[in-house]
Amino acid sequence: MEAGEGVSGTTPTEEMNGAGNLMDFLDEPFPDVGTYEDFHTIDWLREKSRDTDRHRKITSKSKESFWELIKSLLDAWSGWVVMLLIGLLSGTLAGVIDLAVDWMTDLKEGVCLTAFYYSHEQCCWTSNETTFDDRDKCPQWQKWAELMTGHSEGGGAYLLNYFLYVLWALLFSFLAVSLVRVFAPYACGSGIPEIKTILSGFIIRGYLGKWTLLIKTVTLVLAVSSGLSLGKEGPLVHVACCCGNLFCSLFSKYSKNEGKRREVLSAAAAAGVSVAFGAPIGGVLFSLEEVSYYFPLKTLWRSFFAALVAAFTLRSINPFGNSRLVLFYVEYHTPWYMAELVPFILLGVFGGLWGTLFIRANIAWCRRRKTTQLGKYPVLEVIAVTGITALLAFPNPYTRRSTSELISELFNDCRALESSQLCDYINNPNMSRPVDDIPDRPAGPGVYTALWQLALALVFKIVITIFTFGMKIPSGLFIPSMAVGAIAGRIVGIAVEQMAYHHHDWIIFKNWCRPGADCVTPGLYAMVGAAACLGGVTRMTVSLVVIMFELTGGLEYIVPLMAAAVTSKWVADAFGKEGIYESHIQLNGYPYLDVRDEFTHRTLATDVMRPRRNDPPLAVLTQDSTTVEDVETLIKDTDYNGFPVVVSRESERLIGFVQRRDLTLAIKNARQKQDGVVSSSVVYFTEDAPQLPLSNPQPLKLRRVLNLSPFTVTDHTPMETVVDIFRKLGLRQCLVTRSGRLLGIITKKDVLRHMAQMMNQDPESIMFN
Amino acid sequence: MEAGEGVSGTTPTEEMNGAGNLMDFLDEPFPDVGTYEDFHTIDWLREKSRDTDRHRKITSKSKESFWELIKSLLDAWSGWVVMLLIGLLSGTLAGVIDLAVDWMTDLKEGVCLTAFYYSHEQCCWTSNETTFDDRDKCPQWQKWAELMTGHSEGGGAYLLNYFLYVLWALLFSFLAVSLVRVFAPYACGSGIPEIKTILSGFIIRGYLGKWTLLIKTVTLVLAVSSGLSLGKEGPLVHVACCCGNLFCSLFSKYSKNEGKRREVLSAAAAAGVSVAFGAPIGGVLFSLEEVSYYFPLKTLWRSFFAALVAAFTLRSINPFGNSRLVLFYVEYHTPWYMAELVPFILLGVFGGLWGTLFIRANIAWCRRRKTTQLGKYPVLEVIAVTGITALLAFPNPYTRRSTSELISELFNDCRALESSQLCDYINNPNMSRPVDDIPDRPAGPGVYTALWQLALALVFKIVITIFTFGMKIPSGLFIPSMAVGAIAGRIVGIAVEQMAYHHHDWIIFKNWCRPGADCVTPGLYAMVGAAACLGGVTRMTVSLVVIMFELTGGLEYIVPLMAAAVTSKWVADAFGKEGIYESHIQLNGYPYLDVRDEFTHRTLATDVMRPRRNDPPLAVLTQDSTTVEDVETLIKDTDYNGFPVVVSRESERLIGFVQRRDLTLAIKNARQKQDGVVSSSVVYFTEDAPQLPLSNPQPLKLRRVLNLSPFTVTDHTPMETVVDIFRKLGLRQCLVTRSGRLLGIITKKDVLRHMAQMMNQDPESIMFN
Repeated sequence: MEAGEGVSGTTPTEEMNGAGNLMDFLDEPFPDVGTYEDFHTIDWLREKSRDTDRHRKITSKSKESFWELIKSLLDAWSGWVVMLLIGLLSGTLAGVIDLAVDWMTDLKEGVCLTAFYYSHEQCCWTSNETTFDDRDKCPQWQKWAELMTGHSEGGGAYLLNYFLYVLWALLFSFLAVSLVRVFAPYACGSGIPEIKTILSGFIIRGYLGKWTLLIKTVTLVLAVSSGLSLGKEGPLVHVACCCGNLFCSLFSKYSKNEGKRREVLSAAAAAGVSVAFGAPIGGVLFSLEEVSYYFPLKTLWRSFFAALVAAFTLRSINPFGNSRLVLFYVEYHTPWYMAELVPFILLGVFGGLWGTLFIRANIAWCRRRKTTQLGKYPVLEVIAVTGITALLAFPNPYTRRSTSELISELFNDCRALESSQLCDYINNPNMSRPVDDIPDRPAGPGVYTALWQLALALVFKIVITIFTFGMKIPSGLFIPSMAVGAIAGRIVGIAVEQMAYHHHDWIIFKNWCRPGADCVTPGLYAMVGAAACLGGVTRMTVSLVVIMFELTGGLEYIVPLMAAAVTSKWVADAFGKEGIYESHIQLNGYPYLDVRDEFTHRTLATDVMRPRRNDPPLAVLTQDSTTVEDVETLIKDTDYNGFPVVVSRESERLIGFVQRRDLTLAIKNARQKQDGVVSSSVVYFTEDAPQLPLSNPQPLKLRRVLNLSPFTVTDHTPMETVVDIFRKLGLRQCLVTRSGRLLGIITKKDVLRHMAQMMNQDPESIMFN
Repeated sequence: MEAGEGVSGTTPTEEMNGAGNLMDFLDEPFPDVGTYEDFHTIDWLREKSRDTDRHRKITSKSKESFWELIKSLLDAWSGWVVMLLIGLLSGTLAGVIDLAVDWMTDLKEGVCLTAFYYSHEQCCWTSNETTFDDRDKCPQWQKWAELMTGHSEGGGAYLLNYFLYVLWALLFSFLAVSLVRVFAPYACGSGIPEIKTILSGFIIRGYLGKWTLLIKTVTLVLAVSSGLSLGKEGPLVHVACCCGNLFCSLFSKYSKNEGKRREVLSAAAAAGVSVAFGAPIGGVLFSLEEVSYYFPLKTLWRSFFAALVAAFTLRSINPFGNSRLVLFYVEYHTPWYMAELVPFILLGVFGGLWGTLFIRANIAWCRRRKTTQLGKYPVLEVIAVTGITALLAFPNPYTRRSTSELISELFNDCRALESSQLCDYINNPNMSRPVDDIPDRPAGPGVYTALWQLALALVFKIVITIFTFGMKIPSGLFIPSMAVGAIAGRIVGIAVEQMAYHHHDWIIFKNWCRPGADCVTPGLYAMVGAAACLGGVTRMTVSLVVIMFELTGGLEYIVPLMAAAVTSKWVADAFGKEGIYESHIQLNGYPYLDVRDEFTHRTLATDVMRPRRNDPPLAVLTQDSTTVEDVETLIKDTDYNGFPVVVSRESERLIGFVQRRDLTLAIKNARQKQDGVVSSSVVYFTEDAPQLPLSNPQPLKLRRVLNLSPFTVTDHTPMETVVDIFRKLGLRQCLVTRSGRLLGIITKKDVLRHMAQMMNQDPESIMFN
């Protein structure tokens, strides 16, 4: 008789009860059943069904008493509470980080005499002696040389300032890398590749822990202040996810369910980008497009809520002192013209090429770091790179200041009152026009100087960023990428502007650029360039454009931005499908199944499943003829995560699947607590175990840990379908059958390995789609 | 020996070839195999694997010659070309519709003497005699009474205008309903419920056809112009989807694959909303949140592109004459204050209640229309409702004008030059302040009149909209819902404003509303109210807020909008989970598996599968013992969409699944073309059929139409997992096995039926999550 045949004769009620019993293993009859080991993949379906069970229990209890009803309502609202808390904390942290970075960046150059904790801007803002024309200068703010020697000018003062600038930078970065090394190794890098992997269902314990949160926040400030070519945006996402993880632990709904936890983390990532740029909608789309794996609609709403709360918390802290929400607020006064699409698309091409160059060079360097002696001296590496950065950055005014300030200046339009070198145009004294509408003018000497300095800054940023990203300190990529693009864009913008001014009779300018008109906005070019470069590196498109749109607040410039972002994506994709985050995921060998890779090969499940030909047969358990000892030997001899259970070795008909961890725990538990269970006890996965006389070894019933609904496909299933199933259902493994007989197993790692294999074999086939 | 056992002994190459052969049925060996019948559900997995096959073929061919490479590149780019075309056409159609509606709406009141095809605004715009204060009056524009009798004032003229207004309205709506009835019955309604169903994988032939496109465009203009309480936004989504379907037919990639076609349609829906509101990002999110079922990232990018192209096409047509992209452009000059959240949340509650009331009443009325005599006289119904609407609307200035104009006026802030009755405040003659910053003032008599008229308009709109939505003409819900909310919001706004003015010493106003300050913006209340009501009816949240954000272009007002939208969703959800679209889907009985309904019941696959206890056994085919006649009888006697194929009736081991349609076509084809196939021929689903002497009836080999990778679950699988699998993989059916033996089948309809059953049994359990 075949297993379980008796069930079909029972009444429906009995069947339901039986089913209930079978699912009772979710009630955690002994501790840790249903949890996962570190560096393992979670089973999304199981997590989901555990949550449904929990939910069902609460709902049915809620009818019993008023107190239970209140509890069930609290449970239903806990999601929103977590979002609120995440928004508040990540907004606050972002504000604190902004303030601290401002102060410490300025500390490298000088100090405020009225209050040492004032940044340069705050110092002169509170001073009465600041004039409107020279907002940057006030007697209260003293450079180090002036403070120490009394001289503010001259070669000696310059050298002293230079020396102290480098010294402070070295001190900051040394502190940063030491803190990371000693207290929280996971706090380094941008964190986005790891967060993507975690959200896809991987367990990395401690990656989002309290220590990581604390150390990442502190070292992020140090790293950014040290003047290294890195940004705070990626790490802010990591910080926000740590906040999310922290608040998850307050509610058992989230702390005990890895699937639900990941919903919260997706929303936290949105809050992170929201505070990084002041762009809540962009943040949600970033989480959706770039980071998240499982993003149901409910998470969309909650992410949006968290992103909004975070943005408004940040605004009420007001770190930029201008009650603006966004990092780079810009307002342009002239529209763009069709002909300008040509330089915009060229900037897109540049962005794509930069993206490719950066990814290849950075991955090559990181691989070298992993494989050679270099990786053994992370502190020295950081010190060396900081030293070189500081030494090279100080002489050039565009690299000396913080990168965000640089980007902000490059984005901005030259208005009448702008005192920047970039706006040193020759005014026509005969022309009097309203201040808002400045015509195109010939460039003055300041602009030409600026162009040279910008060109040098561009080369410097391109080279140094490649070596900076991946060091053992918190480092984001957004700001350096945007800086590269903004510099290139501004240079192109000024070139086009001057061309339009000097050659306004050329056919391309004739139609839209009359003399005396304000037709080219170099700031817009900078913004387009920044979008293109960021797009080339990360391969974001929609979220990128939306973030940029939120910065400018006008639909007007969406077309240039979109044109550049899409061009840059296409160009970069032509050289390789993967963005920087996917490349780092691959470099680190995380089991990440990218939603975007399309699998288009003609292989079948049978080609991928194990055991392969010539391999020993699949390690299976039988439902009623394996002893405890057999099981223990199997567990000891293999390292599989689980074992299929079959009716008998002869018929190979599949009954269910049992997790290695659950099996180990169950046997350990039984050996301790259950009398009569010895090595020769037979393990039963059937519904009923035979009643044996007490003298015989007592049977061990393990149906409770048996998953009776393992996922199966036939051996003829195309791998493309299998990949789709793994992706969409978030499986860990899948069993392969042919006409009801168990043939083999496919795990997530088998799928990933097969995909990598196929891709190398025929890399072209995935290029066009 | 069991089928296919020989395969495991073959070499990998042979296996690959064999696999290739097995999948050849996708090459359409005879026409129509792999297509679907009307009102059937598509198989997403099959469509996807067909597309991969096509893609693979093109890629491998592209290496053969340069021409094939070009062709493969064209194929890769065809997606973007389709998007461009959709954007261009839907933008153009939206522009034309806007212009036509403008003209025809004004035609109900009068005509332009200089050119009959000018709308009122255009007429006076081109006139030299228009003054700035009275932009609406010019001698060229004459009301009908003035034109016919020469008198523009007096009771007779009023009555004549009234009569003609009603007459035009009746004419327009009669034309609209007749055109719909005669030429394209599918052109009625908003179309969004059907589009949701189609996108989820249902086939409704002709719903997105050329005739529907043409007739819907024309009748939409007529219906909106007739002054009925309906909008053009939903139908514009339908029109855009028709455009999408039209352009799909240009490329075999899309026309021959129902899955790929749906990707295009999702993007088209985004373009539709984009042109309806001038909100491209909102459009994409609407498509993502509200309409689409399968929305991969690639579709996100393409939707965004289509939405942008559509928006810019519309802008270059410039139907509103103000080069604004958005339908209701607003700019507010004062921030909002924390205390105002109370009225905003109250508006949210109102919106939720209105949503519930509207959905219940409208569904009840539509059900009555379906089940009683009422449904038999659609033309009369439209005429009657139009008559009542026009008769009641004319006397009230707020209902006489078009609803969009009304909303636009309600949204707008009172600026210095506003001549509207709503802005008839009493100015303090002693106060001279800049025109931009008007303090709160006491309301004048005009405002009080307006309040009364608005209250009447509110009641009128609430009642008439319930009866209008669902009639046999194109009708959108967005505009009437927004109008209800905007009226309520404006009334609340004026009330708060007057309270703040007269009682600025009250504790709630004290902190933020000093006398002489401009602290309350009634227009913002109107906008918040509109968002709340729209949210209550449709249950959108994020896309709604984003659309509103794109209208105002400022992050400032996101918090009020979000507060109202979320409150309204919560309030409405407390009375029933379904939005208006889902309710109409249910009313019409479409097989739509909502992604948002969570299935939380404790049932198993065995409870849902057929055959049920006492049912006749499952209709199966065997792999090598069924004759053609048996198959034909089975097809005749049952109406199942497909049949499982098993090794033998005794062993019940599953081999594969064959579609009814494919089986019918294959047998028909074989009978016509293949010699020796007669009724007594044996049908073979195995790899090799035995060689029989010519005298015997020749076997019919049908492995080509057999799906060798049917989806199976075990009988113990929780239904919740089954529902998840159906949703995420887009299955049509799923087979149920126990230890390798086929027990039964679950189809999408079984799942839907079971879900409905469970929900009615225990409706409360889905309320909290």
